[in-house]
Amino acid sequence: MDLKKYIATIPDFPEEGILFRDITPLMEDGEALHYTVKQLSNYAKKVGADVIVGPEARGFIFGTPIAFDLNIGFVPIRKPNKLPRETIEQSYDLEYGKNTLCIHKDAIKKGQKVLIVDDLLATGGTVEATCKLVESLGGEVVGTAFVIELVDLKGRDRLGKYDVFTLLKY
Amino acid sequence: MDLKKYIATIPDFPEEGILFRDITPLMEDGEALHYTVKQLSNYAKKVGADVIVGPEARGFIFGTPIAFDLNIGFVPIRKPNKLPRETIEQSYDLEYGKNTLCIHKDAIKKGQKVLIVDDLLATGGTVEATCKLVESLGGEVVGTAFVIELVDLKGRDRLGKYDVFTLLKY
Repeated sequence: MDLKKYIATIPDFPEEGILFRDITPLMEDGEALHYTVKQLSNYAKKVGADVIVGPEARGFIFGTPIAFDLNIGFVPIRKPNKLPRETIEQSYDLEYGKNTLCIHKDAIKKGQKVLIVDDLLATGGTVEATCKLVESLGGEVVGTAFVIELVDLKGRDRLGKYDVFTLLKY
Repeated sequence: MDLKKYIATIPDFPEEGILFRDITPLMEDGEALHYTVKQLSNYAKKVGADVIVGPEARGFIFGTPIAFDLNIGFVPIRKPNKLPRETIEQSYDLEYGKNTLCIHKDAIKKGQKVLIVDDLLATGGTVEATCKLVESLGGEVVGTAFVIELVDLKGRDRLGKYDVFTLLKY
């Protein structure tokens, strides 16, 4: 299935010089969404994930259907002040700005095999911070999976020590 | 399956006097997540939904696995400046504050049967605004579905003209 025809490309969003890859047409097509989730879910099975972790908000979009498909749990990574119980946090530099991510302290059990899922791999900052949160809680990151990879931003190099699976390269 | 044992209750979050119902333990349990999605997905099938619409961010958590399960599309409702193409927007008053929601103008086709999904029904403001967005684009709201209903906040009354399905009442 040619998924690229479901990706819209928008110049200068969210700011000038950025070429934004928009996955909403893919999500809005039942067949394309199902096919995409199945590809990611097959990878999750292959690496033996027993929990899926996804950062807010677009990591939820593909992360939860994978968890549902495999009958495993989903752990959300959220921005500060969103998770109600005790959290740990991790800050990192963005392409434009700074960000802080949080995870509930009891969300990952020691030794759990974790697959991290997001819609898009750019510089890799979000996922690197997510990996650190998971490892701080004793989880083992068995892989990272994305629908889209922006190759020029070298996120794959930054995530060097982790297995990286992507469906579409730009 | 007794889903209530997977809901954590946190007093005074996000501010004093609010009793927060936390669904993260439910999401983190593979069996509970699967069962919850299946219940919602059965309702979606019953009302004949041909697309699922969910508001950012927690509407994504249950909305996309339902869409995946039924082989139909998922349309995200987002806060301003998140969707890259042409949008319409709708503002409404929150329990504490004000909010604006956006949808891509081409996200819903005329006559599409839409199920709106979110994690929690409180006052119903978010979902009412979402219904208005869907109807502005010519969609038909065939139902609204939630994991949790906070009965005292009377969201069900506010959504009077729509069918409302909830799994857990508090």
